[in-house]
Amino acid sequence: MVNQIPHIIIGRLPLYLRALNRLQKDGYEYASSRELGKLLDLSAAQIRKDLSHFGELGKRGKGYEIEFLICKLNQILNTDNIWKMIVIGAGDLGSGLTRYKGFANRGFQVSAIFDIDPQKIGKKIGDLVVKDIRELEKFVKTNKIQIAVLAIPAKYAQDVIDDLVDTGITAILNYAPIYLKAPHGVQIEHIDPAVHLQKLSYFLK
Amino acid sequence: MVNQIPHIIIGRLPLYLRALNRLQKDGYEYASSRELGKLLDLSAAQIRKDLSHFGELGKRGKGYEIEFLICKLNQILNTDNIWKMIVIGAGDLGSGLTRYKGFANRGFQVSAIFDIDPQKIGKKIGDLVVKDIRELEKFVKTNKIQIAVLAIPAKYAQDVIDDLVDTGITAILNYAPIYLKAPHGVQIEHIDPAVHLQKLSYFLK
Repeated sequence: MVNQIPHIIIGRLPLYLRALNRLQKDGYEYASSRELGKLLDLSAAQIRKDLSHFGELGKRGKGYEIEFLICKLNQILNTDNIWKMIVIGAGDLGSGLTRYKGFANRGFQVSAIFDIDPQKIGKKIGDLVVKDIRELEKFVKTNKIQIAVLAIPAKYAQDVIDDLVDTGITAILNYAPIYLKAPHGVQIEHIDPAVHLQKLSYFLK
Repeated sequence: MVNQIPHIIIGRLPLYLRALNRLQKDGYEYASSRELGKLLDLSAAQIRKDLSHFGELGKRGKGYEIEFLICKLNQILNTDNIWKMIVIGAGDLGSGLTRYKGFANRGFQVSAIFDIDPQKIGKKIGDLVVKDIRELEKFVKTNKIQIAVLAIPAKYAQDVIDDLVDTGITAILNYAPIYLKAPHGVQIEHIDPAVHLQKLSYFLK
């Protein structure tokens, strides 16, 4: 049954989680669907409908108990423990992501960074040393890595995706502004700042 | 009327635009709502409904004429000319965004980068030289900038947003993993890789 939940709903769960973490930090214990909706620019009805896919999570008249819902969402999203991931590309973006401290408390940790450029291999980034891309397969298999972050130019992205899939990677966060093909069972998420900028420019005069 | 279109639909238009640009590059002249839906993980009915907000854009039996729809979407999104924007923060991320070549053909151009750190001010990044944040107000007003990209640590983000709003900035793309408050009329978009990673981890075992 859980497998039948539309991707669009799954995509909203991390936003719920982020909003709930914020409310908890601000000292709240309960959140109504209306309060959540206000934070998330969604209707209260939409939020109740989304969350109803996962059981009876709210209490009539009190709303959702924040700590419980955070715990439940982490369970659903499999972020109740830490996923090790790798970063491909040790340029500005890959280095920044590797040094970024905000992943650990949300379920993720960069455990290696790879590049093809001999000038970058061996360089220290945060606590890691850039590895040769030729070590990729061995590293992924030995460490049972499932998630890769792609921070490389668009023209290399498809080749690298093919290699990643061969090693057993099944989840890819792609920063290259390009459509990528992957076999069934491999999930790709795209981060594309121009998409967000275009949404902003809609509102400009 | 156009102002009443739900944000969620506006948010999908850049994705339509990206998919249409790809189809055009691949040599297609027309796209059906079914084909677009497949690329975008949306139903054909959803796509027809979204686009129907903007007039009769498709032709019965032929689908959407790609070149026309690209033109129309650029018009709606105000990306039929180039918006100048500024980047705040000359760390890894801000530098990478400033050097990034993929904005211009999608309606945007970085025209200045600012930092508070004397070690970074004066440094060359791509074709630009990092400016002192104290020059921000004058630059924004003189150049009538409306869009700012925030690539700074979370703890400084709210103060900088307040300053940006004071100078007249009305559109902000925020990379700091934090909720930010801005007055009515100022749009903020968030880019948060952990949100995408959590969507990916849902599908992992």
